[in-house]
Amino acid sequence: MKTYRKELWFNLPQRRQLINITPEVMKALAESDIEEGLCLVNAMHISASVFINDDESGLHQDFETWLEKLAPEKPYSQYRHNTFEDNADAHLKRTIMGREVVVAVTKGKLDFGPWEQIFYGEFDGKRKKRVLIKIIGE
Amino acid sequence: MKTYRKELWFNLPQRRQLINITPEVMKALAESDIEEGLCLVNAMHISASVFINDDESGLHQDFETWLEKLAPEKPYSQYRHNTFEDNADAHLKRTIMGREVVVAVTKGKLDFGPWEQIFYGEFDGKRKKRVLIKIIGE
Amino acid sequence: MKTYRKELWFNLPQRRQLINITPEVMKALAESDIEEGLCLVNAMHISASVFINDDESGLHQDFETWLEKLAPEKPYSQYRHNTFEDNADAHLKRTIMGREVVVAVTKGKLDFGPWEQIFYGEFDGKRKKRVLIKIIGE
Repeated sequence: MKTYRKELWFNLPQRRQLINITPEVMKALAESDIEEGLCLVNAMHISASVFINDDESGLHQDFETWLEKLAPEKPYSQYRHNTFEDNADAHLKRTIMGREVVVAVTKGKLDFGPWEQIFYGEFDGKRKKRVLIKIIGE
Repeated sequence: MKTYRKELWFNLPQRRQLINITPEVMKALAESDIEEGLCLVNAMHISASVFINDDESGLHQDFETWLEKLAPEKPYSQYRHNTFEDNADAHLKRTIMGREVVVAVTKGKLDFGPWEQIFYGEFDGKRKKRVLIKIIGE
Repeated sequence: MKTYRKELWFNLPQRRQLINITPEVMKALAESDIEEGLCLVNAMHISASVFINDDESGLHQDFETWLEKLAPEKPYSQYRHNTFEDNADAHLKRTIMGREVVVAVTKGKLDFGPWEQIFYGEFDGKRKKRVLIKIIGE
């Protein structure tokens, strides 16, 4: 069995932002030299997400509007977590979007349907954060 | 290490429908001849879901009502994604339900609790779609 | 390839409760003697969750309030599932929080970011329930 580990680093200028990281995950898979297995991609921070969806800007605006409706950022006073932080909403938004994805690796490629793309979802940006890629297989 | 890959195909007559795919996943596991490992089951389309819950028709009606409340299909004009599509709600519903499940394989069986069943959740049907099963182990 | 399997048992006195199970998962990983691989931790019951977030009591109260807003327990009559049960809300709450986490194992440790902690989320307690830990690797 082979394993491969790689971190991706982010320091995004906005509080909330979605970044397509599919090319970076493909690059890591090529570096791993793994042909068959599983690829885990997860946020290492609890106010960020890794998820799979469509790379379409209208949909990304819809995610922003929808997440703000389900777990609004303000008023900060509505959350108990915010007595010493202001990012409770980011923890809730990431819960909806998910921490991680597990992707099949087949013949050395991410085994994806036609529109699947991997995103890093930042919900409390303006600081350094990491994504972990761990691939196992052979 | 062994790996096994199989696709399940769907073309459902309704926009939204939940299908119990546990028997198909069990069949794939038997075909794989893998005794110990992990089984990934994921939707290959971004407006569909694979999730684990109860096979109880009342609960499935509750899911429909609840998802329509959290991410209503109509009016289509409420979503930016719908300037050229009408399925933004399906992307959001699938986000809540999840893209994938990872199930432990133990002694050649899906290592399940008493009521766990795997479902394909279609949220934008009337077209061909796929689910991927990837099993690794030995 | 090595695999390791362990169950954690719970019988919580409250209907809803969040329990930090990180120490138990670390213990299972040490017992497994696996250095590199993947660690699946999942609820074996469909009205409970395993998820990763912050071990901060204010945030945990925010989760309770938020989940009650998105999927309220009462009135029981609002759910079809409740004609013979009263836990439909628990199935919905667990759907938002997620069934499982997959954690990378690197150099014999859970490969975590600075604040990641694994929780068991009980949404229909006062009965025996289990969490499954399955680790594969070498």
